Amino acid sequence: MERAKRPHILVCNDDGIEGEGIHALAAAMKKIGQVTVVAPAEPHSGMSHAMTLGVPLRIKKFFKNSRFFGYTVSGTPVDCIKVALSHILPEKPDLIVSGINYGSNTATNTLYSGTVAAALEGAIQGITSLAFSLATYEHADFTYSGKFARKLVKKVLLEGIPPDTVLSVNIPNVPESLISGAVITRQGRSRWEESAIERNDMYGNPYYWLNGTLRLLDEDMRDDEFAVRQNYVAITPISCDMTNHSLIGTLEQWNLQK
Amino acid sequence: MERAKRPHILVCNDDGIEGEGIHALAAAMKKIGQVTVVAPAEPHSGMSHAMTLGVPLRIKKFFKNSRFFGYTVSGTPVDCIKVALSHILPEKPDLIVSGINYGSNTATNTLYSGTVAAALEGAIQGITSLAFSLATYEHADFTYSGKFARKLVKKVLLEGIPPDTVLSVNIPNVPESLISGAVITRQGRSRWEESAIERNDMYGNPYYWLNGTLRLLDEDMRDDEFAVRQNYVAITPISCDMTNHSLIGTLEQWNLQK
Repeated sequence: MERAKRPHILVCNDDGIEGEGIHALAAAMKKIGQVTVVAPAEPHSGMSHAMTLGVPLRIKKFFKNSRFFGYTVSGTPVDCIKVALSHILPEKPDLIVSGINYGSNTATNTLYSGTVAAALEGAIQGITSLAFSLATYEHADFTYSGKFARKLVKKVLLEGIPPDTVLSVNIPNVPESLISGAVITRQGRSRWEESAIERNDMYGNPYYWLNGTLRLLDEDMRDDEFAVRQNYVAITPISCDMTNHSLIGTLEQWNLQK
Repeated sequence: MERAKRPHILVCNDDGIEGEGIHALAAAMKKIGQVTVVAPAEPHSGMSHAMTLGVPLRIKKFFKNSRFFGYTVSGTPVDCIKVALSHILPEKPDLIVSGINYGSNTATNTLYSGTVAAALEGAIQGITSLAFSLATYEHADFTYSGKFARKLVKKVLLEGIPPDTVLSVNIPNVPESLISGAVITRQGRSRWEESAIERNDMYGNPYYWLNGTLRLLDEDMRDDEFAVRQNYVAITPISCDMTNHSLIGTLEQWNLQK
């Protein structure tokens, strides 16, 4: 029997090509298929689905220990996907994976995340796409998350996921022995509170840093952030379609005229 | 009978405080309530839900014909909402309106839009929020769109909309006499094709401009962009919750282990 063609996997992130997580993810994907890395030259956390319209983009080769590792694009995660598909890859990849992000992309942070946006851009382009995030901002250990990413990607290649949907995967930053399991979750509701702090410059003029505390509005194992905090891997299917379909009937009854 | 308190309305956009559309929207809202304008100092189209984390933000007053018009924030539309709520407004506004954007924010563009993102940020903060866009990139006439925005906002103040949902309103750029009506729509499926073009600089090195053609994947009056092209005002309820709830059951049957 002929051996199946190895899938071509495009790897991206939002922490930039020097982020530790993309090296862990690329290493994990190389065990499954042929890998091309295209990532932002600089960190782009919190860039959401932003794209660069006002300035042109540059592509560069990036070397790690003198060996070619991948390409950088001088823009956002979404720019990377667009440029990779139009100018770097010879043909459409079989899969796009984004991450492994440093910090969880759960609850409301789904909307802010460049990691998730890169995967959504893949889905918009008709490519099966996943986003991976590690729920920590310090002492990141990508050992288990890389292993889980490999396992889930194999399953996705086998089963497929519907168009216009990505899987956003959030993984606790604990050793495998402490992982409780893997659960399918929804995007929990949350809110950043106290979202900017004021300081004064040397001339006494104020400036503002975005800041805040993520307050969870749900505490339920069906919610991504809550599940991750109980040491579960949380897998949330995220849709490109943001319509609140359940409200359409109500609004139609408003009988709006032009 | 005591006259009802006039609502306090926060007006934002993504085209920046010099965009013609925000002046039309602020003028329309002043007929309904007390208005505070907080907008990006510079244009931020295509910035989606991006927020500024690496540099601090500045707030400035903006004057139009020597009269105070509103505040600028040196960041993205989402930054504007965060800074407005934490440092500019004395209390939570009753409503946030974003726009009137120059160019439609229909179909996939919903994900890229800073105009929609500003409204979503309002909804995340628990405030009733709407986004308005005019479907043109040239010869914009905000007369009818301002009038329709006023009418719809009055209705929303009366009826309310559920939490975590914004109304994204796209208005054809034609005189009122040519408007076919107003319909409730869903975010249509679409894709940008040929999403970057290559040029060479004076040294012969390539650079890339994001570019492309929006290809509609649906042609149905229930879809926002299609309806707008038939000269209907398209009102799409957009949710902060991006979960594809219909896929959860299927994924649970994968029986993923840790």
